[in-house]
Amino acid sequence: MKRFKAAVIGGSGYGGAELIRRLLLHPDIELVRVASVDFVGEPLSAAHPNLEGRRDDLRFEKLSATEAAAGCDVVLLALPHKVTAEKVAELWPTGVRILDLSGDFRLKDAAAYEKWYGARHPAPELLAEAVYGLPEVNRERIRGARLVASPGCFATTIELGLLPLARAGLLAGEVDTVAITGSSGSGVAPQAGTHHPVRAGNLRTYKPLSHQHVPEIEATLAAEGAHIALRFVPVSAPLVRGIFATSFVHVDAAVTAADVAAAFASSYRGEPFVRIPARRLPEVVAVAGSNHAEVGCAVGDPVDGRRVVTCLSATDNLIKGGAGQGIQSLNLMLGLDERLTLEDPGSWP
Amino acid sequence: MKRFKAAVIGGSGYGGAELIRRLLLHPDIELVRVASVDFVGEPLSAAHPNLEGRRDDLRFEKLSATEAAAGCDVVLLALPHKVTAEKVAELWPTGVRILDLSGDFRLKDAAAYEKWYGARHPAPELLAEAVYGLPEVNRERIRGARLVASPGCFATTIELGLLPLARAGLLAGEVDTVAITGSSGSGVAPQAGTHHPVRAGNLRTYKPLSHQHVPEIEATLAAEGAHIALRFVPVSAPLVRGIFATSFVHVDAAVTAADVAAAFASSYRGEPFVRIPARRLPEVVAVAGSNHAEVGCAVGDPVDGRRVVTCLSATDNLIKGGAGQGIQSLNLMLGLDERLTLEDPGSWP
Amino acid sequence: MKRFKAAVIGGSGYGGAELIRRLLLHPDIELVRVASVDFVGEPLSAAHPNLEGRRDDLRFEKLSATEAAAGCDVVLLALPHKVTAEKVAELWPTGVRILDLSGDFRLKDAAAYEKWYGARHPAPELLAEAVYGLPEVNRERIRGARLVASPGCFATTIELGLLPLARAGLLAGEVDTVAITGSSGSGVAPQAGTHHPVRAGNLRTYKPLSHQHVPEIEATLAAEGAHIALRFVPVSAPLVRGIFATSFVHVDAAVTAADVAAAFASSYRGEPFVRIPARRLPEVVAVAGSNHAEVGCAVGDPVDGRRVVTCLSATDNLIKGGAGQGIQSLNLMLGLDERLTLEDPGSWP
Amino acid sequence: MKRFKAAVIGGSGYGGAELIRRLLLHPDIELVRVASVDFVGEPLSAAHPNLEGRRDDLRFEKLSATEAAAGCDVVLLALPHKVTAEKVAELWPTGVRILDLSGDFRLKDAAAYEKWYGARHPAPELLAEAVYGLPEVNRERIRGARLVASPGCFATTIELGLLPLARAGLLAGEVDTVAITGSSGSGVAPQAGTHHPVRAGNLRTYKPLSHQHVPEIEATLAAEGAHIALRFVPVSAPLVRGIFATSFVHVDAAVTAADVAAAFASSYRGEPFVRIPARRLPEVVAVAGSNHAEVGCAVGDPVDGRRVVTCLSATDNLIKGGAGQGIQSLNLMLGLDERLTLEDPGSWP
Repeated sequence: MKRFKAAVIGGSGYGGAELIRRLLLHPDIELVRVASVDFVGEPLSAAHPNLEGRRDDLRFEKLSATEAAAGCDVVLLALPHKVTAEKVAELWPTGVRILDLSGDFRLKDAAAYEKWYGARHPAPELLAEAVYGLPEVNRERIRGARLVASPGCFATTIELGLLPLARAGLLAGEVDTVAITGSSGSGVAPQAGTHHPVRAGNLRTYKPLSHQHVPEIEATLAAEGAHIALRFVPVSAPLVRGIFATSFVHVDAAVTAADVAAAFASSYRGEPFVRIPARRLPEVVAVAGSNHAEVGCAVGDPVDGRRVVTCLSATDNLIKGGAGQGIQSLNLMLGLDERLTLEDPGSWP
Repeated sequence: MKRFKAAVIGGSGYGGAELIRRLLLHPDIELVRVASVDFVGEPLSAAHPNLEGRRDDLRFEKLSATEAAAGCDVVLLALPHKVTAEKVAELWPTGVRILDLSGDFRLKDAAAYEKWYGARHPAPELLAEAVYGLPEVNRERIRGARLVASPGCFATTIELGLLPLARAGLLAGEVDTVAITGSSGSGVAPQAGTHHPVRAGNLRTYKPLSHQHVPEIEATLAAEGAHIALRFVPVSAPLVRGIFATSFVHVDAAVTAADVAAAFASSYRGEPFVRIPARRLPEVVAVAGSNHAEVGCAVGDPVDGRRVVTCLSATDNLIKGGAGQGIQSLNLMLGLDERLTLEDPGSWP
Repeated sequence: MKRFKAAVIGGSGYGGAELIRRLLLHPDIELVRVASVDFVGEPLSAAHPNLEGRRDDLRFEKLSATEAAAGCDVVLLALPHKVTAEKVAELWPTGVRILDLSGDFRLKDAAAYEKWYGARHPAPELLAEAVYGLPEVNRERIRGARLVASPGCFATTIELGLLPLARAGLLAGEVDTVAITGSSGSGVAPQAGTHHPVRAGNLRTYKPLSHQHVPEIEATLAAEGAHIALRFVPVSAPLVRGIFATSFVHVDAAVTAADVAAAFASSYRGEPFVRIPARRLPEVVAVAGSNHAEVGCAVGDPVDGRRVVTCLSATDNLIKGGAGQGIQSLNLMLGLDERLTLEDPGSWP
Repeated sequence: MKRFKAAVIGGSGYGGAELIRRLLLHPDIELVRVASVDFVGEPLSAAHPNLEGRRDDLRFEKLSATEAAAGCDVVLLALPHKVTAEKVAELWPTGVRILDLSGDFRLKDAAAYEKWYGARHPAPELLAEAVYGLPEVNRERIRGARLVASPGCFATTIELGLLPLARAGLLAGEVDTVAITGSSGSGVAPQAGTHHPVRAGNLRTYKPLSHQHVPEIEATLAAEGAHIALRFVPVSAPLVRGIFATSFVHVDAAVTAADVAAAFASSYRGEPFVRIPARRLPEVVAVAGSNHAEVGCAVGDPVDGRRVVTCLSATDNLIKGGAGQGIQSLNLMLGLDERLTLEDPGSWP
């Protein structure tokens, strides 16, 4: 008999798939219900072939948010933005704990939300209630949270790469970032950008300098005392899972490579899911399929009193950059070991 | 305190990687030692980047087989053929249990070994001691075995596709099979056939009609009463993990599609890792990353009193087709729940 | 001043893309018009990014078939089946030459068309007029044809692999075939089967034993005197361009490997676009990006008086298996050197 | 009878493959000889399967540079650095024209060569003789050149992206660049970084801030009056052909997006192989398989009196970024239309 009961709302996409997979394996949380507007009445495997024959008692159900939450300790939302906020507003009075994978509660500022997401926020009064679900910065606040806004995939990856410099007081001003993503980040719906004949041989950017994760990253780093202007160019590449981010930070030439290495080492000491590879730089294949992030850096020679530091980071966009990190926060919210169901180092290769 | 101790010999390849990953997660088996001729003195992560920072106390060690086995309940071998048999001969007198991923003990006939593996068998006297590690046919014998020869990746996949017909008495004569494999089946050493610029856009065969898994498959099916002449063409395709097999069996026209479906259903009822998708045919992406196999069939119209049945099957070549199945057998050998560490349905997508 | 004028109808898909590319390079044929129901009024590059800035005078036009054909020597059709036949019926009275990439005129039998294509043929009276556009069997008839039905991608590949045995009188009875295809064969419209996150790691079959190219293949070989029952299983693999086919033929044990090799050699002597690799077996990467097909075989040992021959073949599905072969036929229709615009051996790798 | 005779030295790699392919198609240049240390005595198809059956009279020959050059108008070198310079020194007295794909003659400064290539330059006296083979900046000088040093793949791509700003006087100071490359850039020899099981799902950097193309890029832009400090991070991605570069340039806020667009438009007016897509940003799949480069930009909002411009560019690393551009220069050197053999827009998709 598991101690906690959970429902998933929006369970037919890739975020939902990963949430459900983890919950099926979870020793302390029972998945009791999956709501969706697609596949209603069908088993989970109708959307997620890897679940063929698993929990055939569960069917996708068309339910209101409160119906979905009935009897649950926690509700996990894997829905598009805007509709999410409406569901959260509906759930809030019930007191159920909420773990949200969308972008709706990551920003504190309703005006910024409107600018970057192109829509008026449906529940601005709840923005102050949400805790940003990056355990490496907000672990204690997540433990007590009723509403956790799990970070975006690009945001997680870029933030983890820049945090060490922020904490060391070395991060300020303009930061140029290119982050390259696999196709699973585009979601479950086939579209031109994920059509295999094109995607398999392509590299292209989209939303250069205007991706909606920018304000989330700037705000997270600002909370650590680092005020930056982020110029972010996302690039699509032909892999399925993974993000690799390169951020260029310019520091005073007096800062040495050893200083930077020390900042990285001290920043993640004891962190269960962020590691600095000992003999190589971060790479996607090392973290794909796991909740681990890898971070590292390369430090340039001094030029005109300045020195460039490139912060490098890699995640699996659907796990540490998505639902896996959501489960990590969920474990914290429920007072459990945050590593539960996330211990797997992933496959090699 | 885990109940059993295990050592891995030949731990730096892809089979070793998957064995080690599972052992690190195992609740009842402690990995105490990893022997290898490569990476000696280096941590596991030197060969397997996914293990960065995991069990840094373990280093690859250059050890004799008996040194590696010291104090262990079981030794897992992930070595090339021929050298494996020499290690097994060395280990045999110690009484340690042995789980072997190589081809050295899959055949009972030393002459057949010499024909298909191109080398005289180093320890033919031990061939009779080995149990073929396909739980779906040998579960009880595996439980008591001292030496388990884990099946080949193609063999597992093709056998699971054909077993239902064999058990139903519908399998005999010539069987034509094409099985398509991902690149991880070629192992960890870079070579022309796995060079990305070529492999990424290629489909090609190798060893057509002469692959060494043929006698293993014929013998396994013969033990079920089905005497076939297998014509097997392996094809390399540009994915990393997975095998998809298509086998053409010709049956009497009186056999109906319903008969065949019933044969499949009854053959795998209650099997934890073989499933027949309810609404679709087997496919690799549904099983990649997990220990599950999928099987199914398509049945042709009668022609001249005969009917073709195509048996379709899919596995992850390194898990159900390799080390995962090895762990399944290991669990059985040690009297444990065979599903331990193998419950994960794998990622989607 | 080029000698001939051509129009393309249905120019926005992948077949259209390849036709247009070749026509733009053609020394003797001028592309004067491209009709389409999509991208109307937009330049060719709106559908085909590789054509950015090329022939910006040409726009996709919404035109009837006869409007499209006005003033042209030849019309090239790259449309779905059924709508094609309607266009051909419209064009027929004008006397313009027609090169058709669809399946509508490949079969001679309207009943077979209805069975395999699931629709009543819109212009059965024209079936007898069409010449099947496989130059290796119909070169002379293509030269004089008013309507050429260019073969299907699977059909071309499988037929070229089996033709040598047919011509040598060695092909009869049941033939089991697996042909594996890249994603471009599914066309330009995004769909579940070509969604990159899934396709990139998948192998799966579709329409096993019921693909509509079966009757076309059987009829082509029957015309060479070989009456077979083809059991064909198509498999989707994660490459973009290419088909690899394996066909199992059972011959009398008295037929030697040398006999089979001689049949292959004599069958394609002097053929500009079919080759038998001298030191290796056929593979996709050798022919991707070119109009060449590769064919070859592996011959089994005698068993019970029979011997298996596996016929192997590889093409680029959009070139020799599609529009390239169409251009080859077009060149023949117009009395030109059939190699025009097709000489490029393609890229390596 | 073709007007010019050419030899290739170092013909068994990917650069050699593309040079040979173009020369086989060339209307005015006859390939008379291919020297190599590998595949000696074997036909070209032994190294390049796409050339199966083409020019079987040509064999790879073990020849000195002067033997290879005998009777030729031009010699094309596709060799590693350092050995190239030795060959050029040997060839120089013969007066033959030389087109070199290596890095040996791209820099004018022997000390810089030693720093970035890790070896003393074998023929520093010839550095001044070489013309950097980027037609978009050196077209006239290439026409008269005896020795053309064809640019590196990253260098070509990054330079073409930055040239418009350089020419408009908008480029100075620190430039941060990430360029992402396909696996064919690593060459023909299998190695860990191109092993398919790893590469197919990986994104990683190598030589961050220390890639040998940096000085070549800085010098090329300096010659246009733009003095920059380039911080360049190369990233490996799982495609075969193509480079996508993103460079961040910081300009005065008074510079408008229209100014930048005008700089791009004027910079490449009339250029046959550099284009600015009209309705989208540059992407690899549009140029893969062709000699075209695509360039474009995204311009940020003003912040603190400055504005970021991201210059985006895409090439096929083996064609416009390699041998194709070499052929473009070769055409210029010989007084031919520079577009010969390069007109193909490449495949879609």
